[in-house]
Amino acid sequence: MPMLLNCDLGESFGAWSMGMDEHVMPHIDQANVACGFHAGDPLVMQKTLRMAKENNVQVGAHPAYPDLMGFGRRSVHASANEIHALIHYQLAALDGMAACAGIELAYVKPHGALYNDMMAKPSVRQAIMKAIADYYRPVKLMLQATPEAENHRQEAEHYGIELLFEAFADRCYDDDGKLLSRTKPGAVHNREKMLAQVRQIAEDQTITTVSGHTLKLQIDTICVHGDNIEGVEAIREIREMLSK
Amino acid sequence: MPMLLNCDLGESFGAWSMGMDEHVMPHIDQANVACGFHAGDPLVMQKTLRMAKENNVQVGAHPAYPDLMGFGRRSVHASANEIHALIHYQLAALDGMAACAGIELAYVKPHGALYNDMMAKPSVRQAIMKAIADYYRPVKLMLQATPEAENHRQEAEHYGIELLFEAFADRCYDDDGKLLSRTKPGAVHNREKMLAQVRQIAEDQTITTVSGHTLKLQIDTICVHGDNIEGVEAIREIREMLSK
Amino acid sequence: MPMLLNCDLGESFGAWSMGMDEHVMPHIDQANVACGFHAGDPLVMQKTLRMAKENNVQVGAHPAYPDLMGFGRRSVHASANEIHALIHYQLAALDGMAACAGIELAYVKPHGALYNDMMAKPSVRQAIMKAIADYYRPVKLMLQATPEAENHRQEAEHYGIELLFEAFADRCYDDDGKLLSRTKPGAVHNREKMLAQVRQIAEDQTITTVSGHTLKLQIDTICVHGDNIEGVEAIREIREMLSK
Amino acid sequence: MPMLLNCDLGESFGAWSMGMDEHVMPHIDQANVACGFHAGDPLVMQKTLRMAKENNVQVGAHPAYPDLMGFGRRSVHASANEIHALIHYQLAALDGMAACAGIELAYVKPHGALYNDMMAKPSVRQAIMKAIADYYRPVKLMLQATPEAENHRQEAEHYGIELLFEAFADRCYDDDGKLLSRTKPGAVHNREKMLAQVRQIAEDQTITTVSGHTLKLQIDTICVHGDNIEGVEAIREIREMLSK
Repeated sequence: MPMLLNCDLGESFGAWSMGMDEHVMPHIDQANVACGFHAGDPLVMQKTLRMAKENNVQVGAHPAYPDLMGFGRRSVHASANEIHALIHYQLAALDGMAACAGIELAYVKPHGALYNDMMAKPSVRQAIMKAIADYYRPVKLMLQATPEAENHRQEAEHYGIELLFEAFADRCYDDDGKLLSRTKPGAVHNREKMLAQVRQIAEDQTITTVSGHTLKLQIDTICVHGDNIEGVEAIREIREMLSK
Repeated sequence: MPMLLNCDLGESFGAWSMGMDEHVMPHIDQANVACGFHAGDPLVMQKTLRMAKENNVQVGAHPAYPDLMGFGRRSVHASANEIHALIHYQLAALDGMAACAGIELAYVKPHGALYNDMMAKPSVRQAIMKAIADYYRPVKLMLQATPEAENHRQEAEHYGIELLFEAFADRCYDDDGKLLSRTKPGAVHNREKMLAQVRQIAEDQTITTVSGHTLKLQIDTICVHGDNIEGVEAIREIREMLSK
Repeated sequence: MPMLLNCDLGESFGAWSMGMDEHVMPHIDQANVACGFHAGDPLVMQKTLRMAKENNVQVGAHPAYPDLMGFGRRSVHASANEIHALIHYQLAALDGMAACAGIELAYVKPHGALYNDMMAKPSVRQAIMKAIADYYRPVKLMLQATPEAENHRQEAEHYGIELLFEAFADRCYDDDGKLLSRTKPGAVHNREKMLAQVRQIAEDQTITTVSGHTLKLQIDTICVHGDNIEGVEAIREIREMLSK
Repeated sequence: MPMLLNCDLGESFGAWSMGMDEHVMPHIDQANVACGFHAGDPLVMQKTLRMAKENNVQVGAHPAYPDLMGFGRRSVHASANEIHALIHYQLAALDGMAACAGIELAYVKPHGALYNDMMAKPSVRQAIMKAIADYYRPVKLMLQATPEAENHRQEAEHYGIELLFEAFADRCYDDDGKLLSRTKPGAVHNREKMLAQVRQIAEDQTITTVSGHTLKLQIDTICVHGDNIEGVEAIREIREMLSK
């Protein structure tokens, strides 16, 4: 099976522009589209969905804590019921708008602090899984490929949902399979290391950690970033390498 | 065909409560449910939908201009594209959440200033109709029964959508078929006049205006209000009268 | 020095009403006024300030995390710089509007989750103290009277700000001087115990804990609640008792 | 008296960046700083104020209708009381934060649709003037220099406030003294015409309209735009020309 590329898109809002969506879209397989709570107003969502359709890109919902001012990067201490409801609202909004664009929304990838909380806190992860299980039609959940994947698979089986595991192209991993904190040197790979990491993922489904150990991980999709020209160029190179 | 009763519901938000939804729900046929832009957070929407399901009440989306602070009562000078997008967002969010509650959302009734602008401005009305026509599955549009109904029907036919016409139980009509301004004496009927107006609508599909003229209107549903105990009592009396 | 009564007020928003402010205002000394981030739109703030002026009630700012949907009750993982800025914004907004009403704003009492985080996390408390210290004119900080008061006083001295210590009229205290969790039996006093606790505070500056121990606390003001008729009645009784 | 340059600044929000503030600030005299309702979160406001202080730039409040999604460009049908309150809130927030940065806020310039409504609708203009008159300390109102200036001066005198009149560097004027609609050819001047218009304003206090007529206007300040590199370059050229 070919390695897929996913990217966060549709993160403009009103008069504010973010990301080089139109340059990224031709090179990726999956667009994680913001749903209005951290970014993405209704017009931006429509525009992003139409662009995904034209480029034959799969669409996932990218729901977040309600926090425009913090771009969804601040953890909000929400209850399981609140998380359930805010995922349904954002997922349903994008899902219906995707249908209007002729797209069948395929998955949910939580954004920012909600993603981090999902990986760190079982209660948040299970609230998210339950929300997806309770949705009226099947959609998958995208989360990070880690050594905990087998536990996550069992949780997902309990809720009756399917998972997609992602790795990060440009981030260095520690020996626990977590991303090395951005505050540490070497946390973000240069171009050469990034390409090497992607090739290794695609060929071996492994990642070499900061200390040189080899992590074996099931990886369905690789997360790339299209915030600026360098990011877009990196995506193009990754795409080209994977196509060979 | 029996006369239906519709009511705006789900207008609480976070810690703030509004309306006596649980007392209203058993007596109405159609719930116009807020979608988060003027009222109704995701938890409130879920709760309202479940209540509608339990009471076998039809559900419509009640989208608004984005204006929590003004409760959607302030007209916002939005473009046709903006209106299209904000209706799709709110409609899709409630529609998907309704599906999760086992409900097939049936119609859209714009809220507050968006409703008033729809009745007063062809450009707004047509933007709304186009949004509904472009939605991925058929839903109806509820608007006010007026002497302009034939024009509205032709517009709807142009867009390929179906209409529901509503009258107001407790509001006095002027000779043009508009609601008498609330600033004028007699604008809001007392209990006796309200019941008489509802009976006349149900039996004759007519309304007697402030000056005593008779308006012949096609009316599918009557709008009632459940904001307080008096409102709930009025709804019960109307329901009882219509059931005879 | 007489014991003061403080109460959270101005927590309506737009069309949503909360609290019985006009019934509470005549009986209290200090109004903690919402500043727009968890409640309190600009019109509500103006109205509340005028009411405070008429009743000769001291005003404090009641800033919160930006979270209308959660009424500021959800902790938001904000940085010290973010807390500093959001306190300045809310404080300045209310302060200037208070000046327009002829009131000199006297203090800041953080709301909800921001208050709880202030009491639990030194980093949040110090961010708040620094914000108040950096404000362009002196205002005090109101926080909970606990056995940690001496530490808090030293922190405040470091920042060069003054503190007001509050106790709660109707809440049972555990032996650590914290409020007994609302999930536990006896967490909220009945009328009789509440009046006894207030009398004890006023006469002895002590509180009897859930296990019967006596806490000695410096207390400048007692927090009361005016959410409903029972709350207003309790405030009247407390006021009457303290006036004797 | 020298001709001043004013520019809208501080219009970033959270993760979204807008404008080249740090490049503009050294070349202007007056910064119109967003107050959180159309742009400008508390952190952005603090940063902008510090930058203004460092560059010795006068600061004005740039309040807007509450409309982040529309960037304050959509007219909101607000009552005089609502306009009064929302101006006080935004003005007070920025004013207090400016004082913390060692700046005495000097004026108010409404933003976007609020500015346009102020120029077009006496009721909005008078609500704004009354809000400024009711503010607890004197600040001026900046509005557009037009042939109606004498009327505006009389209105201001009635409210006891002072006015600042601004012209636009790069916009073509029609014979009524209004800006030529952006939909018309020639609405926005090229570099050469812009510089000529600024020179004419500075030397003669006149503007040559689209049809070649000469408007005599009292002009205190010229509005420039620093959204991109071309804008910044234009500001530098204007500054240089005015300094000779």
